[in-house]
Amino acid sequence: MAAQDTRNRVVTEAIRLFNAQGSAAVSTNHIAEAAGISPGNLYYHYRNKEEIIRAIFDRVDAHWAASFVLPDDRVPALGDVRVVVRQTFAGIWTYRFFYRELGALTRRDPELAARFRTLRERGIAGTESLLRAFHGAGVIDGPVDDDDLRRLARLMMLVAEFWLPFEETGSAVPGYEPIDEGVALLMQILDPYLADRALAGMAGARSAIPAREGGER
Amino acid sequence: MAAQDTRNRVVTEAIRLFNAQGSAAVSTNHIAEAAGISPGNLYYHYRNKEEIIRAIFDRVDAHWAASFVLPDDRVPALGDVRVVVRQTFAGIWTYRFFYRELGALTRRDPELAARFRTLRERGIAGTESLLRAFHGAGVIDGPVDDDDLRRLARLMMLVAEFWLPFEETGSAVPGYEPIDEGVALLMQILDPYLADRALAGMAGARSAIPAREGGER
Repeated sequence: MAAQDTRNRVVTEAIRLFNAQGSAAVSTNHIAEAAGISPGNLYYHYRNKEEIIRAIFDRVDAHWAASFVLPDDRVPALGDVRVVVRQTFAGIWTYRFFYRELGALTRRDPELAARFRTLRERGIAGTESLLRAFHGAGVIDGPVDDDDLRRLARLMMLVAEFWLPFEETGSAVPGYEPIDEGVALLMQILDPYLADRALAGMAGARSAIPAREGGER
Repeated sequence: MAAQDTRNRVVTEAIRLFNAQGSAAVSTNHIAEAAGISPGNLYYHYRNKEEIIRAIFDRVDAHWAASFVLPDDRVPALGDVRVVVRQTFAGIWTYRFFYRELGALTRRDPELAARFRTLRERGIAGTESLLRAFHGAGVIDGPVDDDDLRRLARLMMLVAEFWLPFEETGSAVPGYEPIDEGVALLMQILDPYLADRALAGMAGARSAIPAREGGER
Protein backbone atom coordinates (compact mmCIF):
# COMPACT_ATOMS: atom_id res chain seq x y z
CA MET A 1 0.00 0.00 0.00
CA ALA A 2 1.48 3.37 -1.01
CA ALA A 3 2.19 5.89 1.77
CA GLN A 4 -0.53 8.25 0.53
CA ASP A 5 -3.10 5.42 0.57
CA THR A 6 -2.17 4.54 4.13
CA ARG A 7 -2.47 8.16 5.23
CA ASN A 8 -5.86 8.52 3.53
CA ARG A 9 -7.08 5.34 5.17
CA VAL A 10 -5.93 6.49 8.62
CA VAL A 11 -7.69 9.83 8.18
CA THR A 12 -10.89 8.25 6.85
CA GLU A 13 -11.06 5.73 9.72
CA ALA A 14 -10.24 8.45 12.27
CA ILE A 15 -13.14 10.58 11.01
CA ARG A 16 -15.49 7.60 11.23
CA LEU A 17 -14.42 6.72 14.80
CA PHE A 18 -14.36 10.34 16.03
CA ASN A 19 -17.85 10.93 14.62
CA ALA A 20 -19.17 7.80 16.32
CA GLN A 21 -17.42 8.08 19.71
CA GLY A 22 -15.95 11.56 20.07
CA SER A 23 -12.24 12.24 19.62
CA ALA A 24 -11.36 11.88 23.33
CA ALA A 25 -12.56 8.27 23.46
CA VAL A 26 -10.56 7.14 20.42
CA SER A 27 -6.83 6.32 20.72
CA THR A 28 -4.26 6.09 17.92
CA ASN A 29 -4.27 2.32 18.57
CA HIS A 30 -8.00 2.17 17.83
CA ILE A 31 -7.39 4.09 14.61
CA ALA A 32 -4.50 1.81 13.57
CA GLU A 33 -6.67 -1.24 14.18
CA ALA A 34 -9.57 0.18 12.17
CA ALA A 35 -7.18 1.07 9.32
CA GLY A 36 -5.73 -2.46 9.39
CA ILE A 37 -2.16 -1.34 10.10
CA SER A 38 0.19 -1.72 13.07
CA PRO A 39 0.50 1.08 15.67
CA GLY A 40 4.14 1.40 14.59
CA ASN A 41 3.12 1.97 10.99
CA LEU A 42 0.60 4.62 12.09
CA TYR A 43 3.29 6.44 14.12
CA TYR A 44 5.52 6.41 11.05
CA HIS A 45 2.90 8.63 9.35
CA TYR A 46 1.40 10.58 12.28
CA ARG A 47 3.22 11.26 15.54
CA ASN A 48 0.04 11.67 17.58
CA LYS A 49 -3.71 12.27 17.50
CA GLU A 50 -3.26 16.04 17.07
CA GLU A 51 -1.46 15.42 13.77
CA ILE A 52 -4.32 13.21 12.59
CA ILE A 53 -6.83 15.89 13.57
CA ARG A 54 -4.83 18.48 11.62
CA ALA A 55 -4.85 16.15 8.62
CA ILE A 56 -8.64 15.92 8.96
CA PHE A 57 -8.75 19.69 9.14
CA ASP A 58 -7.00 19.82 5.74
CA ARG A 59 -10.06 18.01 4.36
CA VAL A 60 -12.47 20.36 6.16
CA ASP A 61 -10.55 23.29 4.72
CA ALA A 62 -10.64 21.86 1.18
CA HIS A 63 -14.36 21.17 1.50
CA TRP A 64 -15.16 24.78 2.41
CA ALA A 65 -12.95 26.09 -0.39
CA ALA A 66 -14.90 23.94 -2.88
CA SER A 67 -18.26 25.01 -1.43
CA PHE A 68 -17.96 28.68 -2.31
CA VAL A 69 -17.68 28.29 -6.06
CA LEU A 70 -20.25 29.84 -8.37
CA PRO A 71 -20.69 29.08 -12.06
CA ASP A 72 -18.54 31.51 -14.06
CA ASP A 73 -20.42 31.05 -17.36
CA ARG A 74 -23.78 32.51 -16.31
CA VAL A 75 -25.56 34.75 -13.80
CA PRO A 76 -26.04 33.04 -10.39
CA ALA A 77 -29.60 31.97 -9.55
CA LEU A 78 -31.54 30.87 -6.47
CA GLY A 79 -30.71 27.22 -7.16
CA ASP A 80 -27.03 28.11 -6.71
CA VAL A 81 -27.73 29.55 -3.25
CA ARG A 82 -29.32 26.28 -2.26
CA VAL A 83 -26.48 24.21 -3.70
CA VAL A 84 -23.92 26.24 -1.70
CA VAL A 85 -25.98 25.97 1.49
CA ARG A 86 -26.49 22.26 1.05
CA GLN A 87 -22.81 21.68 0.28
CA THR A 88 -21.95 23.52 3.48
CA PHE A 89 -24.17 21.31 5.62
CA ALA A 90 -23.01 18.15 3.88
CA GLY A 91 -19.46 19.02 4.94
CA ILE A 92 -20.50 19.79 8.49
CA TRP A 93 -22.23 16.43 8.67
CA THR A 94 -19.21 14.59 7.20
CA TYR A 95 -16.85 16.17 9.77
CA ARG A 96 -19.41 16.41 12.55
CA PHE A 97 -17.07 15.54 15.46
CA PHE A 98 -15.09 18.64 14.49
CA TYR A 99 -18.14 20.91 14.89
CA ARG A 100 -19.30 19.12 18.04
CA GLU A 101 -15.88 19.58 19.65
CA LEU A 102 -14.85 22.87 18.10
CA GLY A 103 -14.19 24.71 21.39
CA ALA A 104 -12.21 21.87 23.00
CA LEU A 105 -10.18 21.06 19.87
CA THR A 106 -9.15 24.65 19.21
CA ARG A 107 -8.35 25.29 22.89
CA ARG A 108 -6.09 22.21 22.97
CA ASP A 109 -4.13 22.96 19.78
CA PRO A 110 -3.19 26.61 19.13
CA GLU A 111 -1.99 25.80 15.60
CA LEU A 112 -5.37 24.25 14.78
CA ALA A 113 -7.09 27.26 16.39
CA ALA A 114 -5.14 29.68 14.18
CA ARG A 115 -5.91 27.65 11.06
CA PHE A 116 -9.58 27.47 12.04
CA ARG A 117 -9.75 31.26 12.51
CA THR A 118 -8.33 31.72 9.01
CA LEU A 119 -10.91 29.28 7.63
CA ARG A 120 -13.71 31.08 9.48
CA GLU A 121 -12.65 34.51 8.20
CA ARG A 122 -12.28 33.17 4.64
CA GLY A 123 -15.72 31.54 4.98
CA ILE A 124 -17.34 34.79 6.12
CA ALA A 125 -15.62 36.74 3.33
CA GLY A 126 -16.63 34.05 0.80
CA THR A 127 -20.25 34.10 1.99
CA GLU A 128 -20.25 37.90 1.80
CA SER A 129 -18.96 37.75 -1.82
CA LEU A 130 -21.62 35.19 -2.72
CA LEU A 131 -24.34 37.36 -1.17
CA ARG A 132 -22.98 40.35 -3.11
CA ALA A 133 -23.02 38.32 -6.35
CA PHE A 134 -26.59 37.21 -5.64
CA HIS A 135 -27.53 40.80 -4.89
CA GLY A 136 -25.92 41.91 -8.15
CA ALA A 137 -27.82 39.22 -10.05
CA GLY A 138 -31.13 40.25 -8.45
CA VAL A 139 -31.57 36.96 -6.56
CA ILE A 140 -31.37 38.96 -3.35
CA ASP A 141 -33.02 42.33 -3.43
CA GLY A 142 -34.34 44.99 -1.12
CA PRO A 143 -32.34 47.55 0.81
CA VAL A 144 -29.15 45.68 1.75
CA ASP A 145 -26.03 47.66 2.57
CA ASP A 146 -22.46 46.48 3.26
CA ASP A 147 -23.05 46.21 7.01
CA ASP A 148 -26.10 44.03 6.37
CA LEU A 149 -24.15 41.76 4.02
CA ARG A 150 -21.29 41.38 6.50
CA ARG A 151 -23.68 40.64 9.37
CA LEU A 152 -25.74 38.23 7.26
CA ALA A 153 -22.54 36.38 6.31
CA ARG A 154 -21.53 36.14 9.99
CA LEU A 155 -25.01 34.94 10.95
CA MET A 156 -24.97 32.27 8.26
CA MET A 157 -21.54 31.09 9.38
CA LEU A 158 -22.70 30.95 13.03
CA VAL A 159 -25.80 28.95 12.12
CA ALA A 160 -23.83 26.56 9.88
CA GLU A 161 -21.09 25.92 12.44
CA PHE A 162 -23.31 25.59 15.52
CA TRP A 163 -26.48 24.11 14.12
CA LEU A 164 -25.35 20.57 14.94
CA PRO A 165 -24.54 21.20 18.64
CA PHE A 166 -27.80 23.18 18.81
CA GLU A 167 -29.79 20.16 17.59
CA GLU A 168 -27.83 17.70 19.70
CA THR A 169 -28.34 19.61 22.96
CA GLY A 170 -32.05 19.86 22.14
CA SER A 171 -34.77 17.25 21.89
CA ALA A 172 -33.92 14.28 19.73
CA VAL A 173 -36.30 13.91 16.82
CA PRO A 174 -36.91 10.31 15.70
CA GLY A 175 -36.29 9.65 12.02
CA TYR A 176 -34.69 13.05 11.79
CA GLU A 177 -32.97 13.97 8.51
CA PRO A 178 -30.38 16.33 9.86
CA ILE A 179 -29.09 18.16 6.82
CA ASP A 180 -32.48 19.30 5.50
CA GLU A 181 -33.32 20.91 8.84
CA GLY A 182 -30.04 22.84 8.86
CA VAL A 183 -30.55 23.94 5.26
CA ALA A 184 -34.08 25.13 6.13
CA LEU A 185 -32.83 27.18 9.07
CA LEU A 186 -30.10 28.81 7.01
CA MET A 187 -32.49 29.55 4.13
CA GLN A 188 -34.85 31.18 6.64
CA ILE A 189 -32.21 33.90 7.19
CA LEU A 190 -32.15 34.65 3.47
CA ASP A 191 -35.84 34.09 2.82
CA PRO A 192 -37.03 37.69 3.30
CA TYR A 193 -34.30 38.95 1.00
CA LEU A 194 -35.06 36.61 -1.88
CA ALA A 195 -36.54 38.44 -4.84
CA ASP A 196 -39.88 37.21 -6.16
CA ARG A 197 -38.36 36.69 -9.57
CA ALA A 198 -35.81 34.32 -8.07
CA LEU A 199 -38.59 32.29 -6.52
CA ALA A 200 -40.73 32.31 -9.68
CA GLY A 201 -40.68 28.97 -11.41
CA MET A 202 -39.08 27.17 -8.48
CA ALA A 203 -41.98 25.15 -7.09
CA GLY A 204 -41.57 24.56 -3.36
CA ALA A 205 -38.34 26.52 -3.41
CA ARG A 206 -38.20 26.65 0.37
CA SER A 207 -38.34 22.93 1.01
CA ALA A 208 -37.29 21.08 -2.14
CA ILE A 209 -33.52 21.03 -2.29
CA PRO A 210 -32.09 20.04 -5.66
CA ALA A 211 -29.05 17.80 -5.30
CA ARG A 212 -25.96 19.09 -7.06
CA GLU A 213 -25.84 16.17 -9.49
CA GLY A 214 -29.56 16.55 -10.25
CA GLY A 215 -29.23 20.23 -11.19
CA GLU A 216 -29.29 21.73 -14.64
CA ARG A 217 -25.82 23.22 -14.48
CA MET B 1 -24.95 33.79 58.14
CA ALA B 2 -28.35 32.27 57.30
CA ALA B 3 -28.38 29.08 55.20
CA GLN B 4 -29.94 30.85 52.21
CA ASP B 5 -27.25 33.55 52.32
CA THR B 6 -24.52 30.91 52.37
CA ARG B 7 -26.08 29.09 49.42
CA ASN B 8 -26.40 32.33 47.43
CA ARG B 9 -22.79 33.20 48.15
CA VAL B 10 -21.58 29.76 47.06
CA VAL B 11 -23.55 30.00 43.81
CA THR B 12 -22.39 33.57 43.11
CA GLU B 13 -18.72 32.70 43.71
CA ALA B 14 -19.03 29.51 41.65
CA ILE B 15 -20.40 31.49 38.69
CA ARG B 16 -17.53 33.97 38.96
CA LEU B 17 -14.86 31.24 39.12
CA PHE B 18 -16.44 29.09 36.38
CA ASN B 19 -16.71 32.12 34.08
CA ALA B 20 -13.06 32.99 34.69
CA GLN B 21 -11.49 29.51 34.60
CA GLY B 22 -14.01 27.05 33.19
CA SER B 23 -15.94 24.64 35.43
CA ALA B 24 -13.44 21.75 35.03
CA ALA B 25 -10.58 23.76 36.55
CA VAL B 26 -12.53 24.84 39.64
CA SER B 27 -12.95 22.48 42.62
CA THR B 28 -15.51 22.68 45.43
CA ASN B 29 -12.57 23.62 47.69
CA HIS B 30 -11.81 26.63 45.49
CA ILE B 31 -15.45 27.65 45.69
CA ALA B 32 -15.57 27.24 49.49
CA GLU B 33 -12.44 29.37 49.83
CA ALA B 34 -13.85 32.11 47.57
CA ALA B 35 -17.13 32.07 49.54
CA GLY B 36 -15.21 32.36 52.83
CA ILE B 37 -16.56 29.10 54.30
CA SER B 38 -15.03 25.73 55.17
CA PRO B 39 -15.21 22.81 52.69
CA GLY B 40 -17.32 20.98 55.32
CA ASN B 41 -19.81 23.84 55.41
CA LEU B 42 -20.02 23.83 51.61
CA TYR B 43 -20.70 20.06 51.59
CA TYR B 44 -23.47 20.62 54.12
CA HIS B 45 -25.26 22.67 51.43
CA TYR B 46 -24.10 21.03 48.19
CA ARG B 47 -22.90 17.44 47.93
CA ASN B 48 -20.79 18.06 44.80
CA LYS B 49 -20.06 20.38 41.88
CA GLU B 50 -23.00 18.99 39.87
CA GLU B 51 -25.40 20.20 42.57
CA ILE B 52 -23.84 23.68 42.46
CA ILE B 53 -24.16 23.72 38.66
CA ARG B 54 -27.84 22.74 38.97
CA ALA B 55 -28.33 25.57 41.47
CA ILE B 56 -26.74 27.94 38.91
CA PHE B 57 -29.09 26.53 36.31
CA ASP B 58 -32.03 27.56 38.54
CA ARG B 59 -30.81 31.14 38.09
CA VAL B 60 -30.39 30.71 34.32
CA ASP B 61 -33.91 29.33 34.18
CA ALA B 62 -35.33 32.23 36.21
CA HIS B 63 -33.49 34.74 34.03
CA TRP B 64 -35.03 33.37 30.83
CA ALA B 65 -38.48 33.27 32.38
CA ALA B 66 -38.14 36.96 33.27
CA SER B 67 -36.82 37.85 29.81
CA PHE B 68 -39.94 36.91 27.91
CA VAL B 69 -42.32 39.32 29.55
CA LEU B 70 -44.11 41.99 27.55
CA PRO B 71 -45.97 44.99 28.95
CA ASP B 72 -49.62 44.00 29.45
CA ASP B 73 -50.98 47.57 29.56
CA ARG B 74 -50.16 48.58 25.96
CA VAL B 75 -49.37 47.26 22.49
CA PRO B 76 -45.78 45.95 22.16
CA ALA B 77 -43.41 48.15 20.14
CA LEU B 78 -39.97 47.82 18.55
CA GLY B 79 -38.28 49.05 21.73
CA ASP B 80 -39.73 46.01 23.51
CA VAL B 81 -38.11 43.65 20.98
CA ARG B 82 -34.78 45.25 21.70
CA VAL B 83 -35.27 45.06 25.47
CA VAL B 84 -36.05 41.32 25.22
CA VAL B 85 -33.05 40.68 22.96
CA ARG B 86 -30.73 42.67 25.18
CA GLN B 87 -32.02 40.94 28.33
CA THR B 88 -31.33 37.60 26.67
CA PHE B 89 -27.72 38.46 25.89
CA ALA B 90 -27.17 39.98 29.33
CA GLY B 91 -28.14 36.61 30.82
CA ILE B 92 -25.90 34.70 28.45
CA TRP B 93 -23.01 36.94 29.44
CA THR B 94 -23.75 36.56 33.17
CA TYR B 95 -23.78 32.76 32.91
CA ARG B 96 -21.24 32.53 30.10
CA PHE B 97 -19.44 29.40 31.30
CA PHE B 98 -22.77 27.59 30.94
CA TYR B 99 -23.04 28.53 27.26
CA ARG B 100 -19.36 27.89 26.61
CA GLU B 101 -19.62 24.39 28.11
CA LEU B 102 -23.19 23.53 27.15
CA GLY B 103 -22.37 20.28 25.34
CA ALA B 104 -20.02 18.93 28.02
CA LEU B 105 -22.24 19.94 30.97
CA THR B 106 -25.39 18.38 29.52
CA ARG B 107 -23.56 15.20 28.45
CA ARG B 108 -22.18 14.78 31.97
CA ASP B 109 -25.47 15.30 33.85
CA PRO B 110 -28.63 13.78 32.32
CA GLU B 111 -30.86 15.60 34.81
CA LEU B 112 -29.34 18.94 33.79
CA ALA B 113 -29.69 17.93 30.13
CA ALA B 114 -33.41 17.21 30.58
CA ARG B 115 -33.95 20.51 32.40
CA PHE B 116 -32.02 22.36 29.70
CA ARG B 117 -34.15 20.79 26.95
CA THR B 118 -37.28 21.98 28.76
CA LEU B 119 -35.79 25.48 29.06
CA ARG B 120 -34.85 25.47 25.36
CA GLU B 121 -38.33 24.37 24.26
CA ARG B 122 -39.97 26.95 26.53
CA GLY B 123 -37.59 29.58 25.15
CA ILE B 124 -38.46 28.75 21.55
CA ALA B 125 -42.19 28.73 22.35
CA GLY B 126 -41.81 32.04 24.23
CA THR B 127 -39.91 33.62 21.35
CA GLU B 128 -42.55 32.38 18.94
CA SER B 129 -45.31 33.96 21.08
CA LEU B 130 -43.41 37.22 21.24
CA LEU B 131 -42.94 37.23 17.46
CA ARG B 132 -46.65 36.53 17.06
CA ALA B 133 -47.50 39.39 19.43
CA PHE B 134 -45.17 41.71 17.49
CA HIS B 135 -46.74 40.55 14.24
CA GLY B 136 -50.20 41.21 15.68
CA ALA B 137 -49.11 44.69 16.77
CA GLY B 138 -47.67 45.46 13.31
CA VAL B 139 -44.06 45.71 14.55
CA ILE B 140 -43.28 42.73 12.32
CA ASP B 141 -45.05 42.66 9.03
CA GLY B 142 -44.83 41.05 5.63
CA PRO B 143 -45.82 37.53 4.68
CA VAL B 144 -44.96 35.49 7.76
CA ASP B 145 -46.67 32.16 8.32
CA ASP B 146 -46.55 29.77 11.30
CA ASP B 147 -43.63 27.79 9.86
CA ASP B 148 -41.65 31.01 9.42
CA LEU B 149 -42.36 32.09 13.01
CA ARG B 150 -41.34 28.71 14.40
CA ARG B 151 -38.14 28.68 12.32
CA LEU B 152 -37.33 32.30 13.20
CA ALA B 153 -37.77 31.48 16.89
CA ARG B 154 -35.41 28.47 16.55
CA LEU B 155 -32.88 30.57 14.64
CA MET B 156 -32.94 33.28 17.30
CA MET B 157 -32.47 30.70 20.04
CA LEU B 158 -29.54 29.13 18.17
CA VAL B 159 -27.86 32.49 17.67
CA ALA B 160 -28.44 33.53 21.29
CA GLU B 161 -27.12 30.28 22.76
CA PHE B 162 -24.11 29.85 20.46
CA TRP B 163 -23.09 33.40 19.73
CA LEU B 164 -20.53 33.40 22.55
CA PRO B 165 -18.68 30.19 21.48
CA PHE B 166 -18.85 31.53 17.92
CA GLU B 167 -17.06 34.74 18.94
CA GLU B 168 -14.63 32.95 21.20
CA THR B 169 -13.51 30.46 18.54
CA GLY B 170 -13.05 33.38 16.12
CA SER B 171 -10.64 36.27 16.07
CA ALA B 172 -10.43 38.23 19.28
CA VAL B 173 -11.42 41.86 18.78
CA PRO B 174 -9.64 44.34 21.07
CA GLY B 175 -11.91 46.58 23.07
CA TYR B 176 -14.82 44.43 22.07
CA GLU B 177 -18.15 45.07 23.76
CA PRO B 178 -19.58 41.62 23.54
CA ILE B 179 -23.28 42.08 24.21
CA ASP B 180 -23.86 44.77 21.59
CA GLU B 181 -22.41 42.56 18.88
CA GLY B 182 -24.70 39.66 19.85
CA VAL B 183 -27.71 41.96 19.94
CA ALA B 184 -26.82 43.31 16.47
CA LEU B 185 -26.58 39.79 15.02
CA LEU B 186 -29.90 38.76 16.48
CA MET B 187 -31.60 41.96 15.32
CA GLN B 188 -30.24 41.28 11.82
CA ILE B 189 -32.48 38.19 11.65
CA LEU B 190 -35.53 40.32 12.43
CA ASP B 191 -34.46 43.39 10.49
CA PRO B 192 -36.14 42.56 7.14
CA TYR B 193 -39.40 41.81 8.94
CA LEU B 194 -39.56 45.05 10.89
CA ALA B 195 -42.30 47.30 9.63
CA ASP B 196 -41.33 50.81 8.55
CA ARG B 197 -43.80 52.27 11.02
CA ALA B 198 -42.01 50.47 13.85
CA LEU B 199 -38.72 51.99 12.74
CA ALA B 200 -40.20 55.44 12.21
CA GLY B 201 -39.18 57.82 14.94
CA MET B 202 -36.51 55.48 16.33
CA ALA B 203 -33.33 57.18 15.22
CA GLY B 204 -30.51 54.69 14.70
CA ALA B 205 -32.87 51.90 15.65
CA ARG B 206 -30.44 49.26 14.39
CA SER B 207 -27.46 50.29 16.47
CA ALA B 208 -28.63 52.32 19.44
CA ILE B 209 -29.83 49.97 22.15
CA PRO B 210 -31.87 51.61 24.89
CA ALA B 211 -30.96 50.23 28.31
CA ARG B 212 -33.92 48.88 30.25
CA GLU B 213 -33.58 51.45 33.01
CA GLY B 214 -33.24 54.30 30.49
CA GLY B 215 -36.39 53.30 28.64
CA GLU B 216 -39.76 55.01 28.79
CA ARG B 217 -41.66 52.06 30.20
